[in-house]
Amino acid sequence: MSKVYKPSAISGFPEYLPEIRRVEQQWIDHIRAVFESYGFCNIETPAVEEVEVLMAKGETDKEIYCLNRLQADPDDNSDSRLALHFDQTVPLARYTAQHFNDLVFPFKRYQIQKVWRGERPQVGRMREFYQCDIDVIAVDNLPLHFDAEMPAVIYEALMGLNIGKVQIKISNRRILIGLLEALGIEDVISTTRIIDKLDKIGVDKVRESLKAEIGLNDAQVDTILTLSTIKTRSAAEVQEKLAGLNVENESFARGVEELCFVLDYLSFMPEEAMIADLSIVRGLDYYTGTVYETNLLEIPEFTSSVCSGGRYDDLASSYINKKLPGVGISIGLTRLFSVLLEHGYIKPAAISPADILMALPSEEMRPLAQQTAQALRARGFKVELYHAPQKIKKQLSYAERKGVPFIWFPPFEDGQAHEVKNMQTGEQVATDVESFAR
Amino acid sequence: MSKVYKPSAISGFPEYLPEIRRVEQQWIDHIRAVFESYGFCNIETPAVEEVEVLMAKGETDKEIYCLNRLQADPDDNSDSRLALHFDQTVPLARYTAQHFNDLVFPFKRYQIQKVWRGERPQVGRMREFYQCDIDVIAVDNLPLHFDAEMPAVIYEALMGLNIGKVQIKISNRRILIGLLEALGIEDVISTTRIIDKLDKIGVDKVRESLKAEIGLNDAQVDTILTLSTIKTRSAAEVQEKLAGLNVENESFARGVEELCFVLDYLSFMPEEAMIADLSIVRGLDYYTGTVYETNLLEIPEFTSSVCSGGRYDDLASSYINKKLPGVGISIGLTRLFSVLLEHGYIKPAAISPADILMALPSEEMRPLAQQTAQALRARGFKVELYHAPQKIKKQLSYAERKGVPFIWFPPFEDGQAHEVKNMQTGEQVATDVESFAR
Repeated sequence: MSKVYKPSAISGFPEYLPEIRRVEQQWIDHIRAVFESYGFCNIETPAVEEVEVLMAKGETDKEIYCLNRLQADPDDNSDSRLALHFDQTVPLARYTAQHFNDLVFPFKRYQIQKVWRGERPQVGRMREFYQCDIDVIAVDNLPLHFDAEMPAVIYEALMGLNIGKVQIKISNRRILIGLLEALGIEDVISTTRIIDKLDKIGVDKVRESLKAEIGLNDAQVDTILTLSTIKTRSAAEVQEKLAGLNVENESFARGVEELCFVLDYLSFMPEEAMIADLSIVRGLDYYTGTVYETNLLEIPEFTSSVCSGGRYDDLASSYINKKLPGVGISIGLTRLFSVLLEHGYIKPAAISPADILMALPSEEMRPLAQQTAQALRARGFKVELYHAPQKIKKQLSYAERKGVPFIWFPPFEDGQAHEVKNMQTGEQVATDVESFAR
Repeated sequence: MSKVYKPSAISGFPEYLPEIRRVEQQWIDHIRAVFESYGFCNIETPAVEEVEVLMAKGETDKEIYCLNRLQADPDDNSDSRLALHFDQTVPLARYTAQHFNDLVFPFKRYQIQKVWRGERPQVGRMREFYQCDIDVIAVDNLPLHFDAEMPAVIYEALMGLNIGKVQIKISNRRILIGLLEALGIEDVISTTRIIDKLDKIGVDKVRESLKAEIGLNDAQVDTILTLSTIKTRSAAEVQEKLAGLNVENESFARGVEELCFVLDYLSFMPEEAMIADLSIVRGLDYYTGTVYETNLLEIPEFTSSVCSGGRYDDLASSYINKKLPGVGISIGLTRLFSVLLEHGYIKPAAISPADILMALPSEEMRPLAQQTAQALRARGFKVELYHAPQKIKKQLSYAERKGVPFIWFPPFEDGQAHEVKNMQTGEQVATDVESFAR
């Protein structure tokens, strides 16, 4: 034997057995079907962008993987500045700018691809993972309708994954920004960063930090906390509580109006599915209006937001002289899937996608078995033809190990009936190609 | 405005508008459905492998893209030997070895992923492209059934793409290898390389080359050419013609037997769909028995093989001490798609996947429009809700530009009927959620 290089898993690059991959595929199929059912079209961008494109907004804190050829050609540096994308937002911005004249706006797109981050290997830290993004991009003005539609889409996408109840938390950054403006607080970033910790560290610690770190007085802190602790799904209640703060500010008023539009639109959603939570600020400077986070209510092991996003004013000014506002949300699929898998929430699917294993009792029956399989496929069934005329016990065992729910026996002689056995119940009955049903 | 970095396409990394991407997606969906209908399960391997894994069989002529982090961390070289996979065969071999104890054999898997090659930029040369592979791997012995099944699967996969008639050419390397052995010809690689050119340079030039370059005599060349020019779909004809060569060789006899098994199995296929063509040798040393190539009969611009493969004795001995024979075939999807696109064979799909655009005639009707859209989605329709109560003319124009086939008008007043307009015929009729059909 020649030298063997025994391969092992590379940290951060998940890979699954077929019976697990099938579940991941079912998830992706479902999410895609929901996205399309709301009229989002798909795009796929290359895995690779120019480093200049990835860095157009300035330095990024994302770890970028650059490409270089193993056998580099000194005369050709055409791909010396290529790198793997680290999210789907930068590629979307680049795509929208580059194909601007060929797109119909509002541009509703979804994108389900892998992204890569050159993270240091660490437990739970992914270096290759799927993201499932929807965004709507408009020219100059984007109707508020889309802010309201995002949670409806995401709720349907997540509820189909069989991961228990989910709750989408919604806020609008204009409200807090307006309040801070009205209160004369200048260090907006540090202040919001502290408020963002409300869920984790609680009211008392936030109060302390706001006083010690920002130097706010009691009245300012009280007002901020009154606002940040609002949690309700009623637009009327949001309006009432915020009116009590007596804030005269344009941004504040607009934020309240926008949030209430979204809440009203979503009033059809089930009770626990959606809530206005004014502590949500999203760390990124990127968002300017509506913001979303999503929690799983029945998976205690998954504590962070499974799906986040919001409204932004400026998608692509790094690449094109146009004002392109948008709103988007992203499911961190691989992270969610891997945590659920680790904690036993993912039930493996059958290894084989086949509905029926066509038995092959003898070499002579191969043509009949083959024809029967073909006829059943034409009726929409997935049929695997057993590969050799081995003992029926062996063929049954194969169907069982691959998880095929039915095994089909073509007749041994002319005039006899086909038979089909339900692998789960053990029941075996006469059947024929035309009338068989699962 | 801030500085704008105007992005442009990167040579070799194709990217499509939504209406073209949808066609590519339909192709992939169809191919996947056919693969699954024969019981192939899916796996997905990371884009990244260790360089040691990619090079385990020795130097490769494929150009490999290695990864390195933009902000390299001198203390951590954990990913300094990572590279993008250049095909799906090496990852399959590594996967099968690594997960050997958890797989059920014969392992029938399909894989539809992108692969990367660090080629010099050049017209028509892809650096990122999709491959659609099926392979069956067994331990020690792989039944010939699978050699026969491959062309049936591929034929169905390709015929569904609406690219005209296809022809799968089949041969068996054992036949030629056995003949060369019987003739006492030692330089097998150079000889087969010349025979491989038969289709391109013709019989006379091949005859010349075999004499001048290999030093064969007339009798040897005649025998080789008699064999290599056999083209028939009849197993009987193959047997008869080859029997006329009077070759006494074990490999030769076994090859003839295997080829005839495959031809007999595939006799149900349409007349032009399949042919035994003994000039097919496939350049790679890798294949040991059945080999396939596939031509498009109605696309003169696509002259090379769109789908090739064959039987191999040894998938993974670089990674595991097991004998794992397999048979596989691969569709070069992106190359095929891009050539057809370039020559006008790809008809763009609608931009939007939606079946119906739900009109929004006024702000007051938003809840009804939203509910109607939701109810139609529950019936399986894809419904985009128009985003603002703009003039109906504008909404119609949006449906038209996005290619949505129906526009739906909720009733303006209680008691009135819903109406739906067929965008193609212009016909507008009363309808309701329960009875609407496309």
